[in-house]
Amino acid sequence: MDQADDQLLTRLRAVNDTAAFNRWCGIEVTTAEPGRVSIEMPWRPEVGQYAGFLHAGVLGALVDTACGFAAATLVGRVLASHYDVNCLRPAVGERFVARARVLKAGKQQVFTTCEVFALAPRADAGGFDETLVATGETLLLVTP
Amino acid sequence: MDQADDQLLTRLRAVNDTAAFNRWCGIEVTTAEPGRVSIEMPWRPEVGQYAGFLHAGVLGALVDTACGFAAATLVGRVLASHYDVNCLRPAVGERFVARARVLKAGKQQVFTTCEVFALAPRADAGGFDETLVATGETLLLVTP
Amino acid sequence: MDQADDQLLTRLRAVNDTAAFNRWCGIEVTTAEPGRVSIEMPWRPEVGQYAGFLHAGVLGALVDTACGFAAATLVGRVLASHYDVNCLRPAVGERFVARARVLKAGKQQVFTTCEVFALAPRADAGGFDETLVATGETLLLVTP
Amino acid sequence: MDQADDQLLTRLRAVNDTAAFNRWCGIEVTTAEPGRVSIEMPWRPEVGQYAGFLHAGVLGALVDTACGFAAATLVGRVLASHYDVNCLRPAVGERFVARARVLKAGKQQVFTTCEVFALAPRADAGGFDETLVATGETLLLVTP
Repeated sequence: MDQADDQLLTRLRAVNDTAAFNRWCGIEVTTAEPGRVSIEMPWRPEVGQYAGFLHAGVLGALVDTACGFAAATLVGRVLASHYDVNCLRPAVGERFVARARVLKAGKQQVFTTCEVFALAPRADAGGFDETLVATGETLLLVTP
Repeated sequence: MDQADDQLLTRLRAVNDTAAFNRWCGIEVTTAEPGRVSIEMPWRPEVGQYAGFLHAGVLGALVDTACGFAAATLVGRVLASHYDVNCLRPAVGERFVARARVLKAGKQQVFTTCEVFALAPRADAGGFDETLVATGETLLLVTP
Repeated sequence: MDQADDQLLTRLRAVNDTAAFNRWCGIEVTTAEPGRVSIEMPWRPEVGQYAGFLHAGVLGALVDTACGFAAATLVGRVLASHYDVNCLRPAVGERFVARARVLKAGKQQVFTTCEVFALAPRADAGGFDETLVATGETLLLVTP
Repeated sequence: MDQADDQLLTRLRAVNDTAAFNRWCGIEVTTAEPGRVSIEMPWRPEVGQYAGFLHAGVLGALVDTACGFAAATLVGRVLASHYDVNCLRPAVGERFVARARVLKAGKQQVFTTCEVFALAPRADAGGFDETLVATGETLLLVTP
């Protein structure tokens, strides 16, 4: 990560800190470069649905947040107009990571896409296994 | 509401109580009849995004939850496969209500749609003004 | 339909006539009022998919077209950014009608929703039975 | 492409030939391997919308068709339940290619994603320049 990306990361973390729900979820911005962002959050029981998986709404919060930050690396202020979530597998893990990238950044709108992975500690020493649990996309409006 | 609807409501409230995230949000099931459900939740600062509106992820949780309960009034166990959210206006209100209905319930899948309203107390005595802040749809898989 | 609606209809029909694919499909604008439009097209074998139902792509063309015209009744030039289609039932009929309405028309974007019905002639004398075969939504950008 | 992929291609081309709308569009299946398919179609004026771009409905037909074929490489008969299209840029080209892949193939449903490119002949000798004009996703039901 070069210096410019480091400044991006600092700026996005400051925005993330102003969002109360992101703080409650424990969402952290982990990497940022122009057009690409990754965020992470830990599992805890309060974010579960009735079967004990990560709630689909929290999956949506990860998609919407990661996509919004990816857009914000390229343009100014944005607001989500539309997002969707594909729930591929039960979202069960110790941590969750969402990686978003910009498909097209225009003057009026930004198209983004996102993958969400569940992380489980490896049986052997160290590291995590990643499972793709959801995908999503967000269409954002550039606000004047 | 007749007796059968009352039993539906009791059953959905029991399911809702088992979902930790729904409890944290303060989501309540307020009405239920075959193919139609409404749920409500109060605003509080912890569910806000950076500008102080209801977080788009929580809007998604309302869509996903109301749609899932609407499907559950007609078929057995369901899991959300796909949902999307249209963020029409800033979601600002004292309470939020999501009203979902089933478009088509088949043996393998259920199509549902949802409207989310923000409620603001009327300036004059009593009641709330409703503003449509989001729409969404959820496609659910009937699990064997 | 009052005089203003009649002018709307005339204007939309002129736009519809300039779209080569709409002409090939036989799409006609049948009603128009501010925020609401309906269009129709006849079945013929060339619009079928492998099983002989209306091709999902043509369902999408109906959704996109009806929603675009509904938006055009309220704002100036628009371009579709995103649309989606729910294929509820096999789309089999003698004619198809798509009815779209605007959910929210803003300065930068317009949210619309649409229902598509298959029409089958009634067994007894006269008229058509309608079956809801698809729903969809389109998010349109207002072009400067 | 090995022999098994060659058989896949032959099988999908046979299915494609049974779809009247695909034939009218001039859609051809160009590559197939387990979980991945590409299709192509030529531009001609009859597939245009009012501004002379490829009609969004035809973009949807490409997404739906490529995704359906990608799913069919892994499971038996499928039907599209839901698809969406992001219209990133004006779809202008001499040919269009859609490349789809399976995100998750389950027993009951298959999640797929697709990119659509416009091809323009290179100014210098030979070949085509590709521009990403749309993305989409399709959720398919495995039919018993």
